[in-house]
Amino acid sequence: MRRVIVGVMGPGAGATPENLTAAYDLGKAIAQAGWVLLTGGRAAGVMAAASQGAKAAGGLTVGILPGKDHQGLADSIDIAICTDLGNGRNNVNVLSADVVVAVGLGLGTVSEIALALKNNKPVILWQPTPTAQTFFEELAPGQFSVVTNIPEAIAQITALIHNPT
Amino acid sequence: MRRVIVGVMGPGAGATPENLTAAYDLGKAIAQAGWVLLTGGRAAGVMAAASQGAKAAGGLTVGILPGKDHQGLADSIDIAICTDLGNGRNNVNVLSADVVVAVGLGLGTVSEIALALKNNKPVILWQPTPTAQTFFEELAPGQFSVVTNIPEAIAQITALIHNPT
Amino acid sequence: MRRVIVGVMGPGAGATPENLTAAYDLGKAIAQAGWVLLTGGRAAGVMAAASQGAKAAGGLTVGILPGKDHQGLADSIDIAICTDLGNGRNNVNVLSADVVVAVGLGLGTVSEIALALKNNKPVILWQPTPTAQTFFEELAPGQFSVVTNIPEAIAQITALIHNPT
Amino acid sequence: MRRVIVGVMGPGAGATPENLTAAYDLGKAIAQAGWVLLTGGRAAGVMAAASQGAKAAGGLTVGILPGKDHQGLADSIDIAICTDLGNGRNNVNVLSADVVVAVGLGLGTVSEIALALKNNKPVILWQPTPTAQTFFEELAPGQFSVVTNIPEAIAQITALIHNPT
Repeated sequence: MRRVIVGVMGPGAGATPENLTAAYDLGKAIAQAGWVLLTGGRAAGVMAAASQGAKAAGGLTVGILPGKDHQGLADSIDIAICTDLGNGRNNVNVLSADVVVAVGLGLGTVSEIALALKNNKPVILWQPTPTAQTFFEELAPGQFSVVTNIPEAIAQITALIHNPT
Repeated sequence: MRRVIVGVMGPGAGATPENLTAAYDLGKAIAQAGWVLLTGGRAAGVMAAASQGAKAAGGLTVGILPGKDHQGLADSIDIAICTDLGNGRNNVNVLSADVVVAVGLGLGTVSEIALALKNNKPVILWQPTPTAQTFFEELAPGQFSVVTNIPEAIAQITALIHNPT
Repeated sequence: MRRVIVGVMGPGAGATPENLTAAYDLGKAIAQAGWVLLTGGRAAGVMAAASQGAKAAGGLTVGILPGKDHQGLADSIDIAICTDLGNGRNNVNVLSADVVVAVGLGLGTVSEIALALKNNKPVILWQPTPTAQTFFEELAPGQFSVVTNIPEAIAQITALIHNPT
Repeated sequence: MRRVIVGVMGPGAGATPENLTAAYDLGKAIAQAGWVLLTGGRAAGVMAAASQGAKAAGGLTVGILPGKDHQGLADSIDIAICTDLGNGRNNVNVLSADVVVAVGLGLGTVSEIALALKNNKPVILWQPTPTAQTFFEELAPGQFSVVTNIPEAIAQITALIHNPT
């Protein structure tokens, strides 16, 4: 029986301390809710923090790597998928997640949000900047949610899983 | 000897009349400059208009299709590449272009701009909205140019080809 | 901490009853050994039988789907990865497995064996036909093993995991 | 108007002198017939020889590269497509060709023949070994042709283009 997968996307090297804290807490809460966590798999930024949080709560973590082997894999990943797709793996990330949560905003994250919205995936933006929120509202009005704390995020994910778009 | 490829990206169904006119004129000017035009290949919006313009000037056109066959191919494409990658083909679009020009802004276009910038490809935005320009300036300051007319676009492409980032 | 993944590849619609029995038994033994089972994820042939076997032994199953959603997913898959790569996902299958075991031989399986060998992945052929064995021996001498029963398969996988090529 | 594309696949480093001669002559004859030549694009083996032959006859050559940039590109390629798909680009090679001709047999070539047959693409094997011919006949009876000289190859390609499978 297929398990629900929640994807957490965000910057690698460019993640802020606030991004890392949010990603860790979110990964932990996702695991506590019984969902599988999916990230881009690398030992950097939001990916690494979210999967560390999920492991701290005994969750299961999946990492979708850009390379053809396990180079650069985060320690906290249980299931590593080696795609050899480079940044093309961003499309696999969003298609494999039941809900996509973006924490912070790097260029890869922007591509993931855009691909998720284009594929009609439920998207949640964690504390977006005003510019980012306006940008995506002009592009995809009503197609994503904004959350500002962990309970709100979990409630929103729960709602989206039970009423997928 | 490899030929220079200029990619023109933009909305399909959601293209405005202004987008279509700009894409046609740009495709024509790209062909007149002796460059190969690359698009997403489908018979829709900016892709179709740009390749029609290029053919009107006797240029060579390449279309990178999302599907596994030629379904939906624009008539004005000479060389059709069937990727079976879905939206994952957006990464192939930008990697194969020496310069990426975005005319209009759909969700697919956003993913292409983001992937192009992430891969350090030269990117040109045609008449971006203030929101879009601010959004990308915050994300990737100094990594893209803005143009507002065809001569400016061709001058900018010429400069970028001779001095790639 | 990354878990070991064993990939079982084989025909979908064209699987023989012998293929299905072998795949089921192999999936079960892989789960009993504590490894994660990876297949092409579809509800057909060797993929479905192997994951059913693994679930019968309480194992964890990963399915790498060719499509962009869960259409055609086998019931016995826990973690579904949606690639939207079509048959291009065969490369992801073999790159993500620590060892690739081929049970039966469809055209997709042949592509997977060839891609696995090209990527220097350990490959095990289950009861290959004489023609298939000769074919791959001429192409990649000494790069794969042949097994004829479950204990032999598990012993071989164990050896390959501890001494990867 | 889309042009007909003939794909020539074969070993890179492992190509024999006979493979190289055949690939060069085939590339030349394909160009003389007015078809576009498509290869894997690298400066090695059958890929390089076929595109050199096509350029000697003034043809147009397309190379589908495994990497994200032009590293390793053959000099004789006009249109370089950068996929960043690694060996996953083999599926793009066969899907983009109207007919696939295999000259020699490396592991990559085997994956391409298998993926082409799986996608119901017309496949032609140039002077296959008895083992290879038997192997593919058992797998895909009646789905491919065997040729032994250039005129036969061109006649067969012509027939397949006019009566695609």
